[in-house]
Amino acid sequence: MNDYKAFNVSVADKVAHVVINRPEKINAMNADFWREIIEIFQWIDDTDEVRAVVISGAGKHFSSGIDLMMLASLGSQMGKDVGRNAEKLRRKVLELQASFNAIDQCRKPVLAAIHGYCLGGAIDMIAACDMRYATHDAQFSIKEIDIGMAADVGTLQRLPRIIGDGIMRELAYTGRTINGEEARSIGLVNRTYESSEALLDGVMGIAGEIASKSPIAIRGTKEMIRYMRDHRVDDGLEYVATWNAAMLQSADLRVAMTAQMSKQKPEFED
Amino acid sequence: MNDYKAFNVSVADKVAHVVINRPEKINAMNADFWREIIEIFQWIDDTDEVRAVVISGAGKHFSSGIDLMMLASLGSQMGKDVGRNAEKLRRKVLELQASFNAIDQCRKPVLAAIHGYCLGGAIDMIAACDMRYATHDAQFSIKEIDIGMAADVGTLQRLPRIIGDGIMRELAYTGRTINGEEARSIGLVNRTYESSEALLDGVMGIAGEIASKSPIAIRGTKEMIRYMRDHRVDDGLEYVATWNAAMLQSADLRVAMTAQMSKQKPEFED
Amino acid sequence: MNDYKAFNVSVADKVAHVVINRPEKINAMNADFWREIIEIFQWIDDTDEVRAVVISGAGKHFSSGIDLMMLASLGSQMGKDVGRNAEKLRRKVLELQASFNAIDQCRKPVLAAIHGYCLGGAIDMIAACDMRYATHDAQFSIKEIDIGMAADVGTLQRLPRIIGDGIMRELAYTGRTINGEEARSIGLVNRTYESSEALLDGVMGIAGEIASKSPIAIRGTKEMIRYMRDHRVDDGLEYVATWNAAMLQSADLRVAMTAQMSKQKPEFED
Amino acid sequence: MNDYKAFNVSVADKVAHVVINRPEKINAMNADFWREIIEIFQWIDDTDEVRAVVISGAGKHFSSGIDLMMLASLGSQMGKDVGRNAEKLRRKVLELQASFNAIDQCRKPVLAAIHGYCLGGAIDMIAACDMRYATHDAQFSIKEIDIGMAADVGTLQRLPRIIGDGIMRELAYTGRTINGEEARSIGLVNRTYESSEALLDGVMGIAGEIASKSPIAIRGTKEMIRYMRDHRVDDGLEYVATWNAAMLQSADLRVAMTAQMSKQKPEFED
Amino acid sequence: MNDYKAFNVSVADKVAHVVINRPEKINAMNADFWREIIEIFQWIDDTDEVRAVVISGAGKHFSSGIDLMMLASLGSQMGKDVGRNAEKLRRKVLELQASFNAIDQCRKPVLAAIHGYCLGGAIDMIAACDMRYATHDAQFSIKEIDIGMAADVGTLQRLPRIIGDGIMRELAYTGRTINGEEARSIGLVNRTYESSEALLDGVMGIAGEIASKSPIAIRGTKEMIRYMRDHRVDDGLEYVATWNAAMLQSADLRVAMTAQMSKQKPEFED
Amino acid sequence: MNDYKAFNVSVADKVAHVVINRPEKINAMNADFWREIIEIFQWIDDTDEVRAVVISGAGKHFSSGIDLMMLASLGSQMGKDVGRNAEKLRRKVLELQASFNAIDQCRKPVLAAIHGYCLGGAIDMIAACDMRYATHDAQFSIKEIDIGMAADVGTLQRLPRIIGDGIMRELAYTGRTINGEEARSIGLVNRTYESSEALLDGVMGIAGEIASKSPIAIRGTKEMIRYMRDHRVDDGLEYVATWNAAMLQSADLRVAMTAQMSKQKPEFED
Repeated sequence: MNDYKAFNVSVADKVAHVVINRPEKINAMNADFWREIIEIFQWIDDTDEVRAVVISGAGKHFSSGIDLMMLASLGSQMGKDVGRNAEKLRRKVLELQASFNAIDQCRKPVLAAIHGYCLGGAIDMIAACDMRYATHDAQFSIKEIDIGMAADVGTLQRLPRIIGDGIMRELAYTGRTINGEEARSIGLVNRTYESSEALLDGVMGIAGEIASKSPIAIRGTKEMIRYMRDHRVDDGLEYVATWNAAMLQSADLRVAMTAQMSKQKPEFED
Repeated sequence: MNDYKAFNVSVADKVAHVVINRPEKINAMNADFWREIIEIFQWIDDTDEVRAVVISGAGKHFSSGIDLMMLASLGSQMGKDVGRNAEKLRRKVLELQASFNAIDQCRKPVLAAIHGYCLGGAIDMIAACDMRYATHDAQFSIKEIDIGMAADVGTLQRLPRIIGDGIMRELAYTGRTINGEEARSIGLVNRTYESSEALLDGVMGIAGEIASKSPIAIRGTKEMIRYMRDHRVDDGLEYVATWNAAMLQSADLRVAMTAQMSKQKPEFED
Repeated sequence: MNDYKAFNVSVADKVAHVVINRPEKINAMNADFWREIIEIFQWIDDTDEVRAVVISGAGKHFSSGIDLMMLASLGSQMGKDVGRNAEKLRRKVLELQASFNAIDQCRKPVLAAIHGYCLGGAIDMIAACDMRYATHDAQFSIKEIDIGMAADVGTLQRLPRIIGDGIMRELAYTGRTINGEEARSIGLVNRTYESSEALLDGVMGIAGEIASKSPIAIRGTKEMIRYMRDHRVDDGLEYVATWNAAMLQSADLRVAMTAQMSKQKPEFED
Repeated sequence: MNDYKAFNVSVADKVAHVVINRPEKINAMNADFWREIIEIFQWIDDTDEVRAVVISGAGKHFSSGIDLMMLASLGSQMGKDVGRNAEKLRRKVLELQASFNAIDQCRKPVLAAIHGYCLGGAIDMIAACDMRYATHDAQFSIKEIDIGMAADVGTLQRLPRIIGDGIMRELAYTGRTINGEEARSIGLVNRTYESSEALLDGVMGIAGEIASKSPIAIRGTKEMIRYMRDHRVDDGLEYVATWNAAMLQSADLRVAMTAQMSKQKPEFED
Repeated sequence: MNDYKAFNVSVADKVAHVVINRPEKINAMNADFWREIIEIFQWIDDTDEVRAVVISGAGKHFSSGIDLMMLASLGSQMGKDVGRNAEKLRRKVLELQASFNAIDQCRKPVLAAIHGYCLGGAIDMIAACDMRYATHDAQFSIKEIDIGMAADVGTLQRLPRIIGDGIMRELAYTGRTINGEEARSIGLVNRTYESSEALLDGVMGIAGEIASKSPIAIRGTKEMIRYMRDHRVDDGLEYVATWNAAMLQSADLRVAMTAQMSKQKPEFED
Repeated sequence: MNDYKAFNVSVADKVAHVVINRPEKINAMNADFWREIIEIFQWIDDTDEVRAVVISGAGKHFSSGIDLMMLASLGSQMGKDVGRNAEKLRRKVLELQASFNAIDQCRKPVLAAIHGYCLGGAIDMIAACDMRYATHDAQFSIKEIDIGMAADVGTLQRLPRIIGDGIMRELAYTGRTINGEEARSIGLVNRTYESSEALLDGVMGIAGEIASKSPIAIRGTKEMIRYMRDHRVDDGLEYVATWNAAMLQSADLRVAMTAQMSKQKPEFED
């Protein structure tokens, strides 16, 4: 599970650690990155042993976003016909989006641990994670506005569900950089830490806590919250009733209740 | 109006006070609770005299959530066929949801005053109220994760409309306990108070304020906000125009405007 | 472009400044106001030179909301038949809503700079803007409740997408006045300033910053955020891919990237 | 199960037969009718033995629609305030709608067998059924237009999902009467019969056929079709996958497959 | 009301007759057409006297669709930048769509009487009408496919709600011409007539019938059907209840009922 | 392109012919079938040369639906825990659905040519195609009801958009077999043919006609119709305007118009 060019992936105590691993390029997102991330999250989704995921960046920064070389190479593939170019571009954008959809649709909770730069495409990426944690001095910027384009791999679609509408627009229109502390105050990250070491420790702790719960219950909970992002309350109530029709027949309830009564830590099957 | 086993209900100055009244069981939600709450809110909805509602808990806590005995008894009703069990469970969950839907759909504003424990099912309940207020040291936890199940009577459906997505997921996955102060900082409660006496005083004051307004205007306002939780802005604009087509012909506007000009307190019919 | 009775409109450095200009009436919204605002925003939308808009109020206040004389005159137009009156009222409300829809649908970002009173209809108005900034001591109140009606020109439809559900309901039910500072803490305004001069300076600075970006990119970004207010994440992703299919073929990307590399300020065509 | 004033209800061979039983009043829908129909369908939904339902009318006609006396009595309950009257009327309409929602939401298929008049409210009623069958000379009319109102208990909401948009509008605007044959050609009824005896025989045969299938499969099928009336294809696919997650573990599949292979008629538990 | 270049408009017996009047150009839709149709339907919507509308074509044909000269002139307005061209085209298409939206949103029923050619844009137009009637030998074709583009002023959006999905796709992909008889069999038109005279007679008769009904009831009915094209059944039920809360207080019900009982023709106020 | 076990795929004159090729098993859908169909349609989507697709069955029948052996093997993979089984089944159903989604989402029109049996899963399959054509004596049955389950790979989700609600329910509840002629009369197939040879000839002719049109226009048209199945009319109008913003700049319009004027057959680039 570790033959990746743009990533380093490891698993310990039921938590997968996915490290963006191109520190010499400020973890810029190149073609390898976009392709491998789908494989990695497919593997995570299929591997019962993994119950939670932490994403972080190797080196001094989380990521500077999409590799500009890669973006430029797209331009060179354009032909003469505007219509056919449009179709090609549309499909390319959908393809890039699919990489972060893989994070969003992963059945296990994904926690982003952010330090240093988190720019452009990196914001699109963390917006697809379940939770975000950062160092005080991490730097966030919706950088796409400065390369003359509307962000198109998720920031403008997922971030409005995470932070307030007023501040969302300001950050998207101006590309203004905010630090970890401001990110926390607007709800972009849940908590900040003094250093990148403290950050990783803290996030691993939360991920470990999640990994100790019933995996059936965690996955059901994630599915329900994901569902509510785009559905009505009445539909959500009907959906969870249908979902739990099967899941309440699982052994995990009995295991959990028994543990609860005996004040012991429950052990759930993968 | 006071023959309830799990509740104590009173009305004063057009405000109904619904007290969960099983303090010896930390106000755990038993079968009586689930059935009576529908009757109570049906009665409130039908009673013109009542214009606002306050829910609180008797004794040291708001509520510890669903009665585990009740949950366990569900298990004993299961038969051999997984499919038929699933249908039974699905209908049972929908039935429990209906109890809190009665709060959500009540035409009069419902304010929760929370002190002590507010755990599991109690979170589902307050998520169906209009506003929440708490003591500094109240304790909130989405406890369902610790009994091995996805919360299914409203927390995962309504809370994402009330608090931010990032913190929502953390609380739902970990079951972490937060106090009144943190609850306020994330928008779960509107304000915190020093003591449960100050809390009840404060909340009754707000409820009284609401009860002094035009009931026609209050009910229209609640309906419009409820509607926007699940509908588009353009649909909402059309809906309020249709609604007000009748309501702007009510006498309450004249009463309100006259009072406004004469600087007197308006008196609205029930 | 300056023959307006209720407004004063000017343009400088690609930023339009729209000033509500009835200070002797606390900028109350009369018939001129409702009609002219549509013309103004139509003109802004059609004028390539304008890239961002600032709205403020002349004199000591932003606006006291709808002119009560105008509201009263509506009453005098009512006939005998409740049904036909209802149709007339419904169409009138839709007509008033159209005035603020013109702000909401304007392709260029609109920033509200608020000082003094911002009451009733003025809240409906700023809820249709992209961002809101205020002085510390600005005063906000959803005043409609006190004239016996549910707000029907946008507050109850757009504000729930901007501030939290719990505080939204409290403000709408009670009409409680909050100042700039509280408005900031609940996300209603992005930032507060000491004085109205500092406010206008600050907001003009942000607007100028926005006006310096690629107009193609800004308009795409606004459209995407507007779209997400009412659509699903998957629909939003498909929409931005379709949109960018054409827009990524614009010269603005090349201009922006060249500027980025040469560390110079890019100049974009209108 | 047969103490109804407006109905006659019987069960044979797992099929419930609900007969509107006020032939002397052309089966006009009076207060008893609206109340009892909820009880009846609640009972049907709860009674495992019943697997399909047939609705027909006693005497020469199916039903002439709402009892005009009942409608008139509504008028006499109106007070002076247009707004409060509006609220009362809105709740009354919602209450009447609930009666036909009980048919729509019943988990067992409901077949309407129609002869003679089927006017006004009777169209609203059959639009809430799963399937409709009629005699050649049955007479259908959306009669509400002729009493000066928009149909408000389901015709305008459910019929557009059943028949084409163009013919829907013509019938709703003109109130034109169509016979069984035309009703069949536009998809309002599935089949026509020579006489009311042949009709009832035929419909009972179809209901019997349905009652012989796996009740788990029938209820799942109805739920899925009901769901698709108002949801997206992708949501529908996800919903059926979640539903069948439990239901494919039912014994009914084994029973059905065994019967299939042995060419025998399967026997399913209620 | 008759200074139109592309139309001839008259009113008789409360029915407006809108005739496309460029017979020498096979009623091709030129710039006048697109602008005037908005004015006409605005006028119709505002004129209480008009209760129903008939659209037909002068000369031998209904209309050959968009004027190709006009389409070609669009091309000449394109500049160098693909992105800015795209914005211009997008706005132009939205502008053309607005012309047919004016028909769709008109509160009074609109009936199309079609003879001869009904091609391309003409299909987009009739898809925005309430009902369609034709001569046996009328000729319909979704011609846009043959000029290398996806139809973008309504055919692909509204027709799928009117005719079946399978035949819809065949006609849109192939541009195959169908006659009045086939159009009737697939539900595109409600009825066919022998000659254009018989057609106009017949359609005027239906429009006259509609004009004799309560205008309050007709407009409510149209709004409800329009609403259901895009909304859920439960939303539709709530919407009609809210609508009728005012409308059931109209005098038209009394007028209609009195007429019904006295077997006389009711006379409704405009 | 022809190493498939369950299919035979060929291309001629820009039309791909996909033949289900297990005639000795009545073309039952086995594991090869479900996997290969995704590869095939991925390849078709990516291959510019292919502009339209025809699906048919080798031998005497179209297909008897899912291979019962495959279904049975699913059962053997079930473990002890109902909850974990449910998760596995849910994912398996989603996986099977993905096979037919590949047809639905293919950008090129897909025509089904059906003769002999078309049962169970085969109905799910043809419901994902654009158009359906059949022999007079083809036999259609929603067979899933007879193996004790609700159809879960598309029939219950897509067919209600294709045929009427009333007949849909009858066929789904009873599993009744209908022939080609009845299928045509309810809109399930567009046309019927005397023999399977005539059928294939006819369908190839229609596919060839489609392949001669502008591929840009065809793909835009398919996307728009697909979109309208699940979206509002106003959203659809905005979407086509955004789409055509790029596509109207394609050379295909000029090619088509030039051909139109010179009365010659246009030649479009792939």
